[in-house]
Amino acid sequence: MDMKKLAGDKAAEYVKDGMVVGLGTGSTAYHMVNAVGEMVKNGLKIQAIPTSKATEAQARELGIPLLTIDELDHVDLAIDGVDEIDPQFNAIKGGGGALYREKVVASMAKEVIWIMDESKLVDKIGAFHLPVEIAQYGSKQAMERMAAYGWNPVLRVRDGKTFVTDNGNFIADLHLGAGFDIQDVYSKLTGMLGVLEHGLFLNMCKRMIVGHSNGEVQVIENPSK
Amino acid sequence: MDMKKLAGDKAAEYVKDGMVVGLGTGSTAYHMVNAVGEMVKNGLKIQAIPTSKATEAQARELGIPLLTIDELDHVDLAIDGVDEIDPQFNAIKGGGGALYREKVVASMAKEVIWIMDESKLVDKIGAFHLPVEIAQYGSKQAMERMAAYGWNPVLRVRDGKTFVTDNGNFIADLHLGAGFDIQDVYSKLTGMLGVLEHGLFLNMCKRMIVGHSNGEVQVIENPSK
Repeated sequence: MDMKKLAGDKAAEYVKDGMVVGLGTGSTAYHMVNAVGEMVKNGLKIQAIPTSKATEAQARELGIPLLTIDELDHVDLAIDGVDEIDPQFNAIKGGGGALYREKVVASMAKEVIWIMDESKLVDKIGAFHLPVEIAQYGSKQAMERMAAYGWNPVLRVRDGKTFVTDNGNFIADLHLGAGFDIQDVYSKLTGMLGVLEHGLFLNMCKRMIVGHSNGEVQVIENPSK
Repeated sequence: MDMKKLAGDKAAEYVKDGMVVGLGTGSTAYHMVNAVGEMVKNGLKIQAIPTSKATEAQARELGIPLLTIDELDHVDLAIDGVDEIDPQFNAIKGGGGALYREKVVASMAKEVIWIMDESKLVDKIGAFHLPVEIAQYGSKQAMERMAAYGWNPVLRVRDGKTFVTDNGNFIADLHLGAGFDIQDVYSKLTGMLGVLEHGLFLNMCKRMIVGHSNGEVQVIENPSK
């Protein structure tokens, strides 16, 4: 049983006629986008905003009507994967490098659903690296500032080259360790010179949908939303 | 008498052998860079970091030895222009669009000197527009957030096209009006989604050097530095 597909398919059930839907990025969101594409083929009328060029291509292929970010004035529902999330709904996202676009879309959404396989739901976040999108110019100095805080930043490399985001920036991956002080890191990263955005998404979702290895799908509602 | 040249020439006197010097951007910094270039021709030994591609080209032409930002590990002295500054040393900078690079260099500098003609020294800042560097993606939404605060943002256009910074971003110019609440705007802009950096440089300089129309040059020391 594909746990990611279980979660992605379940989340697609929340998509209703007339909605503007944020389509996430990554291997779990991939299944959700496929499921939504199937519903569109069967007559569902929605408009969607993709959170990456990869998802945009997938959605276009599936015939899902797309809005550009500049056309967007509201989002009814955003569905996206997470890299890690704790029971207080604090998530790390952006392992794929799309964290900024994901945050723009999620922050506009009336309702947010995070989808995942069971391995992503952890007692304390931080075993997974926290991605931070930084400007190319001054990236060395930004890395030094983050290293000085003991955050163990590593500049992301792909195929032997420094990884460049859809926005033309670099990604620093912080290795914080499970149990790091979430609020402290959040407040220091927010507004740090050279940082466009970071992958801490704190208490943003209305629900999480978790696919389990036994084939069950768990829907966990956020009581504070 | 060229007030900008008066200030630029005076500031160059603070550049000493062995220093790493941040070279600012704009019409006043232009004179300072020329003066430093003259000193280098006469034997001054420095290394410099330019704050824009324009200043980089000017400095290279003058034979000033340059470091790249990735080679830079410290800055002894940064000299740059301002668009407005008040007696409490709160400045608006970045009218030319180089605010991010200017802030990276100034924030590293052991000592900062702002240079200007007398029109820039004002009782309260805010008559000049405050530039904010924002990511292209989500710029419409960032503009809407700033408009909702009553900041009257205008997306910068040059030659009929949206202006793009050296970092590939847009500039929103805020029209706040003299006497706006500096700390409130500073704290809201710092870390705002989509904002890389803004042109508020609060109490960063050790001194300002002001060229006057009567030919005098005024050096104002910052008692808190």
